Amino acid sequence: MSILRGRFRGKAGEDLAAFASSAEEDSLMVVEDLRGSRAHATMLGESGIIPDQDASALVAAIETLEQEYRSGAWEPDPVEEDVHMAVEAELTRRLGGVGKKLHTARSRNDQVATDVRLWLLAHLDELAECVRELVLTLVDCTQRSGKALMAGYTHLQRGQPVWLGHYLLAHAWSLQRDVARIQAARERCNASPLGAGAMAGTSHPIDRVRTAALLGFERVLPNAMDAVAARDHMQETAAACAICMSHLSRMAEELIVWASAEFAFVKLAEEYTTGSSIMPQKRNPDGAELIRGKTGRVYGNLQALLVMTKGLPLAYNRDLQEDRTALFDAVLTTTDCVRLMARMWATAEVDRDRFAQELRGDFSLATELADGLAQRGVPFREAHERVGAIVRRCDEAGGNFAALTPEQVAETDPDLGELWSLALDAEGAAERRVSQGGTAWSQIEDQCEALKRQG
Amino acid sequence: MSILRGRFRGKAGEDLAAFASSAEEDSLMVVEDLRGSRAHATMLGESGIIPDQDASALVAAIETLEQEYRSGAWEPDPVEEDVHMAVEAELTRRLGGVGKKLHTARSRNDQVATDVRLWLLAHLDELAECVRELVLTLVDCTQRSGKALMAGYTHLQRGQPVWLGHYLLAHAWSLQRDVARIQAARERCNASPLGAGAMAGTSHPIDRVRTAALLGFERVLPNAMDAVAARDHMQETAAACAICMSHLSRMAEELIVWASAEFAFVKLAEEYTTGSSIMPQKRNPDGAELIRGKTGRVYGNLQALLVMTKGLPLAYNRDLQEDRTALFDAVLTTTDCVRLMARMWATAEVDRDRFAQELRGDFSLATELADGLAQRGVPFREAHERVGAIVRRCDEAGGNFAALTPEQVAETDPDLGELWSLALDAEGAAERRVSQGGTAWSQIEDQCEALKRQG
Amino acid sequence: MSILRGRFRGKAGEDLAAFASSAEEDSLMVVEDLRGSRAHATMLGESGIIPDQDASALVAAIETLEQEYRSGAWEPDPVEEDVHMAVEAELTRRLGGVGKKLHTARSRNDQVATDVRLWLLAHLDELAECVRELVLTLVDCTQRSGKALMAGYTHLQRGQPVWLGHYLLAHAWSLQRDVARIQAARERCNASPLGAGAMAGTSHPIDRVRTAALLGFERVLPNAMDAVAARDHMQETAAACAICMSHLSRMAEELIVWASAEFAFVKLAEEYTTGSSIMPQKRNPDGAELIRGKTGRVYGNLQALLVMTKGLPLAYNRDLQEDRTALFDAVLTTTDCVRLMARMWATAEVDRDRFAQELRGDFSLATELADGLAQRGVPFREAHERVGAIVRRCDEAGGNFAALTPEQVAETDPDLGELWSLALDAEGAAERRVSQGGTAWSQIEDQCEALKRQG
Amino acid sequence: MSILRGRFRGKAGEDLAAFASSAEEDSLMVVEDLRGSRAHATMLGESGIIPDQDASALVAAIETLEQEYRSGAWEPDPVEEDVHMAVEAELTRRLGGVGKKLHTARSRNDQVATDVRLWLLAHLDELAECVRELVLTLVDCTQRSGKALMAGYTHLQRGQPVWLGHYLLAHAWSLQRDVARIQAARERCNASPLGAGAMAGTSHPIDRVRTAALLGFERVLPNAMDAVAARDHMQETAAACAICMSHLSRMAEELIVWASAEFAFVKLAEEYTTGSSIMPQKRNPDGAELIRGKTGRVYGNLQALLVMTKGLPLAYNRDLQEDRTALFDAVLTTTDCVRLMARMWATAEVDRDRFAQELRGDFSLATELADGLAQRGVPFREAHERVGAIVRRCDEAGGNFAALTPEQVAETDPDLGELWSLALDAEGAAERRVSQGGTAWSQIEDQCEALKRQG
Repeated sequence: MSILRGRFRGKAGEDLAAFASSAEEDSLMVVEDLRGSRAHATMLGESGIIPDQDASALVAAIETLEQEYRSGAWEPDPVEEDVHMAVEAELTRRLGGVGKKLHTARSRNDQVATDVRLWLLAHLDELAECVRELVLTLVDCTQRSGKALMAGYTHLQRGQPVWLGHYLLAHAWSLQRDVARIQAARERCNASPLGAGAMAGTSHPIDRVRTAALLGFERVLPNAMDAVAARDHMQETAAACAICMSHLSRMAEELIVWASAEFAFVKLAEEYTTGSSIMPQKRNPDGAELIRGKTGRVYGNLQALLVMTKGLPLAYNRDLQEDRTALFDAVLTTTDCVRLMARMWATAEVDRDRFAQELRGDFSLATELADGLAQRGVPFREAHERVGAIVRRCDEAGGNFAALTPEQVAETDPDLGELWSLALDAEGAAERRVSQGGTAWSQIEDQCEALKRQG
Repeated sequence: MSILRGRFRGKAGEDLAAFASSAEEDSLMVVEDLRGSRAHATMLGESGIIPDQDASALVAAIETLEQEYRSGAWEPDPVEEDVHMAVEAELTRRLGGVGKKLHTARSRNDQVATDVRLWLLAHLDELAECVRELVLTLVDCTQRSGKALMAGYTHLQRGQPVWLGHYLLAHAWSLQRDVARIQAARERCNASPLGAGAMAGTSHPIDRVRTAALLGFERVLPNAMDAVAARDHMQETAAACAICMSHLSRMAEELIVWASAEFAFVKLAEEYTTGSSIMPQKRNPDGAELIRGKTGRVYGNLQALLVMTKGLPLAYNRDLQEDRTALFDAVLTTTDCVRLMARMWATAEVDRDRFAQELRGDFSLATELADGLAQRGVPFREAHERVGAIVRRCDEAGGNFAALTPEQVAETDPDLGELWSLALDAEGAAERRVSQGGTAWSQIEDQCEALKRQG
Repeated sequence: MSILRGRFRGKAGEDLAAFASSAEEDSLMVVEDLRGSRAHATMLGESGIIPDQDASALVAAIETLEQEYRSGAWEPDPVEEDVHMAVEAELTRRLGGVGKKLHTARSRNDQVATDVRLWLLAHLDELAECVRELVLTLVDCTQRSGKALMAGYTHLQRGQPVWLGHYLLAHAWSLQRDVARIQAARERCNASPLGAGAMAGTSHPIDRVRTAALLGFERVLPNAMDAVAARDHMQETAAACAICMSHLSRMAEELIVWASAEFAFVKLAEEYTTGSSIMPQKRNPDGAELIRGKTGRVYGNLQALLVMTKGLPLAYNRDLQEDRTALFDAVLTTTDCVRLMARMWATAEVDRDRFAQELRGDFSLATELADGLAQRGVPFREAHERVGAIVRRCDEAGGNFAALTPEQVAETDPDLGELWSLALDAEGAAERRVSQGGTAWSQIEDQCEALKRQG
Repeated sequence: MSILRGRFRGKAGEDLAAFASSAEEDSLMVVEDLRGSRAHATMLGESGIIPDQDASALVAAIETLEQEYRSGAWEPDPVEEDVHMAVEAELTRRLGGVGKKLHTARSRNDQVATDVRLWLLAHLDELAECVRELVLTLVDCTQRSGKALMAGYTHLQRGQPVWLGHYLLAHAWSLQRDVARIQAARERCNASPLGAGAMAGTSHPIDRVRTAALLGFERVLPNAMDAVAARDHMQETAAACAICMSHLSRMAEELIVWASAEFAFVKLAEEYTTGSSIMPQKRNPDGAELIRGKTGRVYGNLQALLVMTKGLPLAYNRDLQEDRTALFDAVLTTTDCVRLMARMWATAEVDRDRFAQELRGDFSLATELADGLAQRGVPFREAHERVGAIVRRCDEAGGNFAALTPEQVAETDPDLGELWSLALDAEGAAERRVSQGGTAWSQIEDQCEALKRQG
């Protein structure tokens, strides 16, 4: 809810109306509300609960209203208590007593629960699609960048040389799991509460399966009290968003670090950075920082939704009205951030030469030597110790592996002398890791294909 | 920030402007921004950094702008990047080149940091005052209600009989600590960042003590980098709000439980409840539920502010722009909820007869008997066992303590026979607890006076 | 991690070892670590990376170690850096140099990632099974309790009369979704990181599919960097736990409220309550309170896991070691709370007479009358107004619907006079709500069958 | 609570005891419990509630027990329900019936509340002292490092050159506010609940002021129900810890980034890093990473404590038992992390030459030129534009400011030509910022003195 919302001034006799209003959130669900009402009216007619002609009149009027709303010709009267009342009032103005029949066999509780779920079905589809686009952007960057060497980091210390794509696809896979989580959350949303009434169902001969089908729900919620009291689908949605934001924050952090003068590995496009009037060439990574900063916002939304239901008895309590503020904000913020991240990577330039020279002979190639020894049958721990001894010698010589010749090494450790070329070949080190999921280019290509095939 | 805010659509070439805008938050700080600029201009003139007449012209123009803003005659042009630029652009339009001098020896970083702190000083005063009013409302309810007996609960089971005021003042004291926490947070806000520049100060001969004094700050922040990077005063503010909301949520829960048909102890005023078109006498405790529901929102705001700075290097990063959304929402939401709670208690009716009869002979008086035995020298644990035996007998007799006569009791336990009147006198039980802070009325009166004296 | 863990005293020269230890968490994964090592050794032999006889010796020694560990005959030497080193040291003691070969083509990073996932597979199965048992307990309570009438609450005000089973199954369905969420989290855990090495794979000709199969994983993680850096499966697990705890906290709250003297609807079994030495018949609902209280703990665990990865670059950072404390605690706490809730409901007694008489003529039957009018063609809103008028009359007469005779009603509103029996029949009101998911007993029976069929 | 705690297995008839145990937390408060009992016994005798000789016997026995506990000769019998019962049982074993008198006029509720507050007084003192030591360590580093030049960062981009001390003291001031917050939290803890009884006080003529004085409390809590129900002092404590952890996480992030090969500005001492068997010279910043990783843990503790009291009615509920787990963990974790950070900075080496050469002519000196123009009367915005034009020229020339001679500059902009030395003098840029709190060395020296004077 906007922080400019109606506030409570605390004057005597002042009532709750402004403070309790959910007008801003409701305004995001007008179309969903009209769709729900249209399905309900259709079913009321088909089931003989209201006369056919009344149902037809209601349906037609609702369709007109939706068109007018979309074109801007009509909008809910803010004088009414809320959007739902505003729709009913307008229908009554247009249709007379027939308008008052719309709410037959329906309660505000199941009506609003339906609206929110319709909103979620649409927006979770959009979010999943955006995340997929980000995945494909990363695949595309991988294929375009080709064999660009970079340092793989642990503890922000250079670990093993990897191709850039190995790093990009690590993120792609985590995002692909986000897609699965978003779809799982959507699956939990995909059940109709319409017809649950206030919490106990109704004695009218309604057809919940019919309204569910009209609205595109896969099934109906099987218990009316649960249908109006449940908020776990929102919490699951917010959790999926929070986890996705965690991934984005990691990517954002890396962009920020890599864009520093010291790392100088990535250059972000001008439109996603901000400059300085005095240093025109400066590119502050504001886009990435905003994403990282909004992570806490979405974590907070999740927390708000969890705290809301802590210790809350069934069925409906007004506390639950707080749900939409946090929910909508979580979904919309995450969607925006995913889009921004995709655009940033789509337009970023990587300095392909940054690490190529610097990693030649780097101590991060030490495991190459140890693996070479191990492949000759030397026990793993012993191999490590023998390489460690050579590393120390190079370090004392004030350099990296390039500081010694194979011959110098062979004096101390003949095996290592023979393997010495491994210590100087960063590209080879990346390319030799052909185990499944390793950084070798063949593995990266396989992953690209696999990611493209995902849903 | 509103969930209707500018969104990022992710189209190629689209820049960050809409997504990155903080226009809504800034719009809450226009007056603070003008005040900050006026003080800065005054100091620039006094320090000889800009000519006197330029300073005077700037000050006069800013004052005019503030009047026009307050009267609605001027508002920041939304075309400008933000409120701060809009002010400068307007001043330049009115004053020409002199307008461009306003930002001398100032950075956006220290300017915005100053605005937020000015906002906080004013709004934390307001919040503390509102909490104080709630404290005084509770004192007033105590004095008006007088010796109204109620069950004191543990585990939502009746524990010991207490006067209503004992319960009300328990909340009053916790709220009084909230006042102290809000004042402590305000104390941490009460230092001027103005003059810190981007993070390193300035080579202009500015006078930070002077601008601080003009703005009502008690002191200046002693390190320029800290002045622009610190967010702990916001986190402390949000924590004070969250703790206050925890208190309100406990009071709200009790109002809801006590307003149930089963407890039937409190009747809330119509204006803070909602009814039903079909059951006109119905009063749903929506006001209390909204407060309880908004608790999660403020907890979430605190979390957002804490996550924002987790692992964030100094000095300024764009992540920090997220601060105001959560901060302003926490302060305004808490203020509203405190006001609403005060109005609800000021207008609630307590059913004074609810417990008076029911607690006569109630087993919750068992400790009276045990204390009576202990005062005759019976060790505490033994006293408990002996009373327990009698409780069992009464329970088997299908009743409470009133089920047995003193004579019947005396047959089993002569001491208890003599003390038996203690078991039937709930008011006496409350009144006998004269230890400091006990529920005896004299203690309550003392507390009322003490609470009124607090700052 | 225990709060009694090794602490950092801050003395000069003191190193990190005690502070950085994860011994307590590791001690929960000894069996998983041995299983992972056995699979790795088997594969090393099969792939020709180490000689067959070495592999066989390792496998046999690991199996012996597992037996000895399970029987208590061996446990990891706390002098070693951690459990993993202790296992290797012990194997080296027993096998000589062959023991040092175990770690070939493996890194601590993929080893520990594998252990945690194995732990999760087992414990999420256990958790899902426990939740299923709670679902079936609620189904069983429903069938045993039969047509026990209770007030359905909104705003903790009596809404519509429902059968107890309608309420119990509302919770059962929300818990059934928890089962689905736990299974979805398990699905995300069900992929092997073994063979990912430090982050880039290995040049040894390992067979990751083979080790995955030996360990019961469904598939391998397709990117080595992702395999060691990902924590989203833990966050999703903790989110599923947090949402489940939210459900439990709602059930706990209701048990506490219903066990109060005022509601007096539920009596909890003695073993899940605590008494008082002085009031032997007292039953404080401590079990339910502990569940409600532990909700915050699990929410906190989720937040800890989310904050941990906020802004954390790939691949491994020591921050990630914090994962297991929060993760294990979330899973174990939730499992315990689910079990406790199941035992509490399995042993609780419901007072079937509590509401039966009281709801006769209760205003919560007002919607019955309105629905009756609507079924005669009266528009919904008008029906509400007409019933509202009668409610007011009854209220003024000082009673509920039973205060007026059909004849008295008919004077004012002939239609309502004819429908008047609806106003006095709470059981009928519940039973008439035959819409799908309504409270009618037939609907409840259908739900019981459907819930039993769920997986 | 340890994750290895007593678990609930859910078997029929199994009671709550293991699951509900708070033994681990209690074991941290044995001394506090004995101190509280000693004070209570002393007062009982002085007030004539129990005979003098009984009181003396109790006091003497408790003192003996404390000595025996400290020496390891006695510890609470785990067979007893909890520590408090174990103490009473032991006293009864030693003193007979007199031991049973100890609990006269006391309840478990006020007893435990007292123990926790005593624990907090001691541990918050320790925490505040540790933070002060960290502040003084930073002051010491500042003075030892002297005029060591570094880049001040915004957006992790080089902003303005500053002395290292300017950065270190920015953190020192934020930590100094943490000291104030910890002291404020301690102030809220510094009130005695002893004598509050279960929630209503007692009819025994106790002297709460006396026990408070004996225990070192500054005052008594004025309302008995508040005394046992309040948890805001714990929440405030956890909030102060969380904010402090936020500061530490920022420092940790910087140490990690600065210790990277790319930044190469800081070298951490070996004992706070971990190495690699294969790369002996490697220093992974594990200490800093653990601190950063534990930030989420403390944030989670705060959330747990806030969620615990959300919607919880007064006075005591078993939910509240969860308080100590989160509280003790927050305080002890923060204390350890503060100590570790102090040791890391005390032993870190800064590469003083890292930036000295690189910042000569760096564009981060651009504001020097602009300020120079402004001091000649050029409006601020115009000055920025003129410098921006020169920056562009240098950039096109493929270098920084050193790429042009003053003469070349003067051709375009004579004023700038005269000011050109400003563009090449990074040390001068730092040193000229003499505004209060600016980075000039004189300002740093003033801050060092001011920080040493703080309490």
